[in-house]
Amino acid sequence: MATFMDVHTGMTGITDEQLAAAHQADLAIEAEEGVHFKQAWADPESGTVYCLSEAPTADAVQRVHERAGHPADEVHPVPLSV
Amino acid sequence: MATFMDVHTGMTGITDEQLAAAHQADLAIEAEEGVHFKQAWADPESGTVYCLSEAPTADAVQRVHERAGHPADEVHPVPLSV
Repeated sequence: MATFMDVHTGMTGITDEQLAAAHQADLAIEAEEGVHFKQAWADPESGTVYCLSEAPTADAVQRVHERAGHPADEVHPVPLSV
Repeated sequence: MATFMDVHTGMTGITDEQLAAAHQADLAIEAEEGVHFKQAWADPESGTVYCLSEAPTADAVQRVHERAGHPADEVHPVPLSV
C-alpha cells in the first residue's frame, strides 16, 4: 500500500453536504479496489478538492473516483510525508 | 484561524531529509506569522509538495514559506473537510 494525494478541479461552489456525499460514495466502494480514502479538503472558491488515500496504485484510486462519478484531474503518489 | 492547503511544484527528486528540513524551516518561524504547518506530503517524481496549515490568512502562509526560502505556487483556503 502507498499514500496518494489526488486533486479535483472545477468543483466551484461545492458545499459541505456535497463534499460529504462525494466522500461517502468513495467509501461505499473503495474496498473493492483495495483503497481507503482518509481525508479530503475543499476550496469552494477555486473549486479545488484534495483527497488523501492509501491504495495499491494510482489507477486504483482513480477507478474508485470514476466509479463514484467524480474522476480526479491528478493522482500523485506521495511517498514522503512529515 | 482557517485551514489552508498549499502546493509547491518543481521539487523533483526531493528527499525525505530535504522535506523534513524544509518543514523544520517553516516551523522555526511560523509562530511569528500566527501560522502552524500541520502536515506535508511530497511526490519526488512529479516534484509536487502539499502542505496543510492553520493560519489567519493565505498571505501569512506564503510569508512563512517565502521567508523559509520555498514560496508556494498556490495557497488555497480549504474551509471544508471530511
